[in-house]
Amino acid sequence: MHGDGALVKAFLEGQPRALARAISRSEAGAGAQTMRALYGRTGRAMTIGFTGPPGVGKSTLIGALIALVRRQAKTVGVVSVDPSSPFSHGAILGDRIRLAEHFTDTAVFIRSMASRGHLGGLAGATGDAVALMDAFGKDVVIVETVGVGQSEIEIAQLADTTVVALQPGSGDSVQLLKAGILEVADIFVVNKSDHPMALQLRREIRSMLEMLEFPGWEPPVVSTQATQGGGVGELWDAIAAHRDYLVQSGERTRKRRAAFLHQARQLAMGRMERRVDAALGALDTEPVQEADPYAAAERIVASVASSGEPAPPAESPAAPLRATVKGL
Amino acid sequence: MHGDGALVKAFLEGQPRALARAISRSEAGAGAQTMRALYGRTGRAMTIGFTGPPGVGKSTLIGALIALVRRQAKTVGVVSVDPSSPFSHGAILGDRIRLAEHFTDTAVFIRSMASRGHLGGLAGATGDAVALMDAFGKDVVIVETVGVGQSEIEIAQLADTTVVALQPGSGDSVQLLKAGILEVADIFVVNKSDHPMALQLRREIRSMLEMLEFPGWEPPVVSTQATQGGGVGELWDAIAAHRDYLVQSGERTRKRRAAFLHQARQLAMGRMERRVDAALGALDTEPVQEADPYAAAERIVASVASSGEPAPPAESPAAPLRATVKGL
Repeated sequence: MHGDGALVKAFLEGQPRALARAISRSEAGAGAQTMRALYGRTGRAMTIGFTGPPGVGKSTLIGALIALVRRQAKTVGVVSVDPSSPFSHGAILGDRIRLAEHFTDTAVFIRSMASRGHLGGLAGATGDAVALMDAFGKDVVIVETVGVGQSEIEIAQLADTTVVALQPGSGDSVQLLKAGILEVADIFVVNKSDHPMALQLRREIRSMLEMLEFPGWEPPVVSTQATQGGGVGELWDAIAAHRDYLVQSGERTRKRRAAFLHQARQLAMGRMERRVDAALGALDTEPVQEADPYAAAERIVASVASSGEPAPPAESPAAPLRATVKGL
Repeated sequence: MHGDGALVKAFLEGQPRALARAISRSEAGAGAQTMRALYGRTGRAMTIGFTGPPGVGKSTLIGALIALVRRQAKTVGVVSVDPSSPFSHGAILGDRIRLAEHFTDTAVFIRSMASRGHLGGLAGATGDAVALMDAFGKDVVIVETVGVGQSEIEIAQLADTTVVALQPGSGDSVQLLKAGILEVADIFVVNKSDHPMALQLRREIRSMLEMLEFPGWEPPVVSTQATQGGGVGELWDAIAAHRDYLVQSGERTRKRRAAFLHQARQLAMGRMERRVDAALGALDTEPVQEADPYAAAERIVASVASSGEPAPPAESPAAPLRATVKGL
């Protein structure tokens, strides 16, 4: 692909703009060449996933953690995944502002990405972004995502250490069970620990953890007050302890192999999705002959199997748009 | 398939157990035959999607709505989708309890389903469940889902009318923009309307709606107090008005065609997913030769294209289980 050689060269010279451009290529679905050239350099960074419901203070917490890591003279990359609308195609940058103090620090690379709720979203482009930051030489790579549900589980499949942040008095803990977060968290953070309900939330998390069996690492519950920086040192210690556990138990190798396979799966599914959408587009130009969705699906599958080449990278499939954002 | 004829016969005789069994078949990934036999009978029911963050009171609201619909001598089907853990494979039934008063009413059929956060989940088995309840003769079919994110958008692609319930003082409105819910809601409900922040939430929703252009239907904001039954009549009126709008504008036909294609797409993707997982499983039994995930994905895609028959319906792909629920 044109310009790949120059991009890889600039990347290897340590130019931050080359890192940014390489990530953009992956976001555009055209990252295969650069990733192939650079993937061999990955595997050194500590990768930390940060997740939790909206408003819990994740960005503040990450900001405080970055400050701490920077005092250890380590370099940091942040991938901030925004589960923004598949309809408006826009990322909301509000939370990002809280990370602004680090924007001017050249050893901190912050990248905001929109995961449009599609296959290949988080584990596709985000996985690439994490790998590229790792290959670029960042010591610590943090992936932040918002929301409760699939994205947390994706993060757990991507990062070495998954930190789940919760806030007291929000009923968060009840939702943990539903969303399957309990099983993927390596570390729990109770942020806003000065809240009167903080102790109760800690208790709830602990009693839920007691329902599970952990053959190896047992997730600690760390209390923080991110706005004051309280507990951030303890959080870092817990992350470092988990990293040590992963390395010593051999779990890190297993986890990274699972992440590799997971990412390969998502990339393959992304290609299949494009083929299916192309077949669906062809189906949509004619009156539907099929009597039921199963028959239509069979026709799509047959058409995909007989088509040789994948369609070019596509945007999200056409959704039933009822409203459009003014000015777009 | 063995027993399909008897199942379809019992279904057509109006036996609720046949409806339950037909839904179970679809859940097990074996619904093609029954769906083919019964799909021609769909298209009569009002389908209503109910969504919103956890704790907003959706089940109470739906319970009140069912009571109202039953007073009109209409029959009701409820599909309650639980975005439960892909790890523990269990659905949490807490919210269901609030619907219990209707469990004894034979004209109300309630079915709880676990969407495991996978492709084909909601639009696959849930789409089938809605179609089957419709084919069975239910006048109103309600789909309830929890959470903020992809599931709402899936519901909007499945149901004629999408109701988004929010509660005051929870910061919900800010998250609407992020999750793309604003664009898919046909009706907003501000539940717990006696809350001091209720008026502010209404204002916030309205000002966000002002940023959008609606060529046809403009989503109303209805205030309810579900526990007291307050506003439920107004909510039903808004749903009926939206149904009338859909019919008169011709939008209903377009929407149902889009839903048909969407469901065919999800079914096709589900088949592709099984093929990819089979190829991945084969890849996982040997040392990974590929230098990067892109190369591995290419090998998977090539293997899927050359394989003729789809693998049998599979459970979710193996996830990196760290903890298991005691007693399972």
